[in-house]
Amino acid sequence: MTILAHGKSGTLKVAPIVKDDRQVEAFIEINERQLADLIMITSGAYSPLETFMDEENYLSVIKGGRLVDSTLWPIPITFDVQEAPTAGTILGLKSGGRHLANLEVLQVYEPLITEELNSTFGTEDPAHPGVAATLARGRFLVSGPLTLIDEPHDDIHGHYLTPVESRAIFQMSKWKSVVAFQTRNPIHRAHEYLHKVALELIDGLFIHPLVGATKDDDVPAEVRMEAYRVLIDNYYPKDRVLLATYPAAMRYAGPKEAILHAISRQNYGCTHFIVGRDHAGVGNYYGTYAAQEVFDELSNDDLKIQIIRFEHSFFCKKCEGVVSKRSCPHASDHHLVLSGTKVRQMLREGTALPTQFTRSEVARVLEEQYR
Amino acid sequence: MTILAHGKSGTLKVAPIVKDDRQVEAFIEINERQLADLIMITSGAYSPLETFMDEENYLSVIKGGRLVDSTLWPIPITFDVQEAPTAGTILGLKSGGRHLANLEVLQVYEPLITEELNSTFGTEDPAHPGVAATLARGRFLVSGPLTLIDEPHDDIHGHYLTPVESRAIFQMSKWKSVVAFQTRNPIHRAHEYLHKVALELIDGLFIHPLVGATKDDDVPAEVRMEAYRVLIDNYYPKDRVLLATYPAAMRYAGPKEAILHAISRQNYGCTHFIVGRDHAGVGNYYGTYAAQEVFDELSNDDLKIQIIRFEHSFFCKKCEGVVSKRSCPHASDHHLVLSGTKVRQMLREGTALPTQFTRSEVARVLEEQYR
Repeated sequence: MTILAHGKSGTLKVAPIVKDDRQVEAFIEINERQLADLIMITSGAYSPLETFMDEENYLSVIKGGRLVDSTLWPIPITFDVQEAPTAGTILGLKSGGRHLANLEVLQVYEPLITEELNSTFGTEDPAHPGVAATLARGRFLVSGPLTLIDEPHDDIHGHYLTPVESRAIFQMSKWKSVVAFQTRNPIHRAHEYLHKVALELIDGLFIHPLVGATKDDDVPAEVRMEAYRVLIDNYYPKDRVLLATYPAAMRYAGPKEAILHAISRQNYGCTHFIVGRDHAGVGNYYGTYAAQEVFDELSNDDLKIQIIRFEHSFFCKKCEGVVSKRSCPHASDHHLVLSGTKVRQMLREGTALPTQFTRSEVARVLEEQYR
Repeated sequence: MTILAHGKSGTLKVAPIVKDDRQVEAFIEINERQLADLIMITSGAYSPLETFMDEENYLSVIKGGRLVDSTLWPIPITFDVQEAPTAGTILGLKSGGRHLANLEVLQVYEPLITEELNSTFGTEDPAHPGVAATLARGRFLVSGPLTLIDEPHDDIHGHYLTPVESRAIFQMSKWKSVVAFQTRNPIHRAHEYLHKVALELIDGLFIHPLVGATKDDDVPAEVRMEAYRVLIDNYYPKDRVLLATYPAAMRYAGPKEAILHAISRQNYGCTHFIVGRDHAGVGNYYGTYAAQEVFDELSNDDLKIQIIRFEHSFFCKKCEGVVSKRSCPHASDHHLVLSGTKVRQMLREGTALPTQFTRSEVARVLEEQYR
């Protein structure tokens, strides 16, 4: 069974790498977020987008959560510049000295900042990291045909797969169903439990950690990748799990970003997507279940991928196992719950993490980092 | 959300208890299996059946697995008598001295034994308990309008609910989804794990043990009921689980009976039904996954209830928890697996069951019985 890509046509919109002989009028060194969006668009992960949004689609998305053709799309994907180029200009997009793509300027427009912030983040508070990143953008947005010249992803972690590649692996593995798990943190026993709950019902697990731009206090990507590898090596059925890096940048847009994450995982070929409590949230900007409930408002045709909603889980001393409040009747004093802050503190102080909380192999990787 | 009853009309076919002044020509003391079928039919659990099958439906079911109106129906539900009554006779059905129902004889016919055995059980082997029960039936089958005179269910275990009652409780509990679990054995940690996996995704769990006629080596119903109660009391979220007895008799018809179990649970108002390995099987008559795979052959319209397929689960010493071969990569020497025979032997010998296998509260109930 193959799941269609997002959008009316149902096909992945993958940009081929081509030779482009046209004259580049200006080169732009793109930032980490622009690079992430370029990778997502050109790999097909943001199908049906084929380039950064024009003003019509930008307005349609921030006003109604849909592209002009009515396809569900929660968040504007735009290319910002500090100074307005003239229409017809070819912009050369460079990163790390490499010329990755050309963007032909068909349209230059100014964003509706207030409307965009409220639509995407539900707040204009500059303390919100996604709001801050939006406010820090260049003044103008640019759109036009995008031509890919070089592979934009560097794969420094050695686990990158494009949607075409992940779909090929799912098919080769004969998985009829694949559930994607988005994370930007090490996987503790609680997450492992949810993965295994999913594996009782679904054929394949796609562990798809975000290793692009995140908040500063997250654990470094290379440490997280090593923790994933030792966890999978020691505790997961190898023929039913696939680890690959997710190249998008975090926006911390809560419910809106949950939809974006689901759309892209459908493009990667997944049939199911796990949405936990406060998915893609930050601080107290979103309700605990807002990123789950947002899917209730969609119609059946909006998404092909199915959402699996999970509660927080924890080790319960009475149950003698990992459970959640959906499955455990015992009072919270029987539960072993450690916040991310507490875990980081224990790691800094050299206190061993309890094995009911973190597999010892994973703890060793994290301790190594904090020593 | 309310799930429709099985059958074209989608409504429960519940027989009201009425006063019947007609002359009863002959009283029949019905056996345990006939009583079970009478309860299932009149309560609506076998909707859309309203009486025991006539010859047309009997033949349609054994030849094509469907009623005459093409509704999915896997197994004939018939009323057998030793001697053929004349058409028009009113038979009084009695059990334990009570007059429960009247059956007006419209039709008397002889079963096609060989075809029925092969259709229902896939075997004619008299060592198969379902085949043996079929061969032990009276020579003739009788059909005609059924009139309910008295409540046929005695509720000696104090946990009986009709489909109307279970549906009312599901609605009152505001469960949008309810998963039924059929069992005829005590619930060990392995089953508890599968229940909790289901509860991570589904709102309510309907533990629906069969307490009607079973093979002789099963644990007595009253002991099982007590084991269910202590397990639920100590380890299950009380607002998300309902225990009720399932009054059907076991046929051990494997895949065909799995369909019958699913149909009746839809009638009880469940949205999901758990089918494990060798569901409703006995000996080696059916393939391990036959009762799961039989649902692949159905069309979307055949059943509204959804099937959840589970693997056997077990405690894994490496995982330090209950898992299945779908979720655990470790070799079987790390797994704690005890057969039913082994458990009964340990109980007889007074050996304590490991707590990773059975909750101590449940073990105490079982030990009590075997002491």
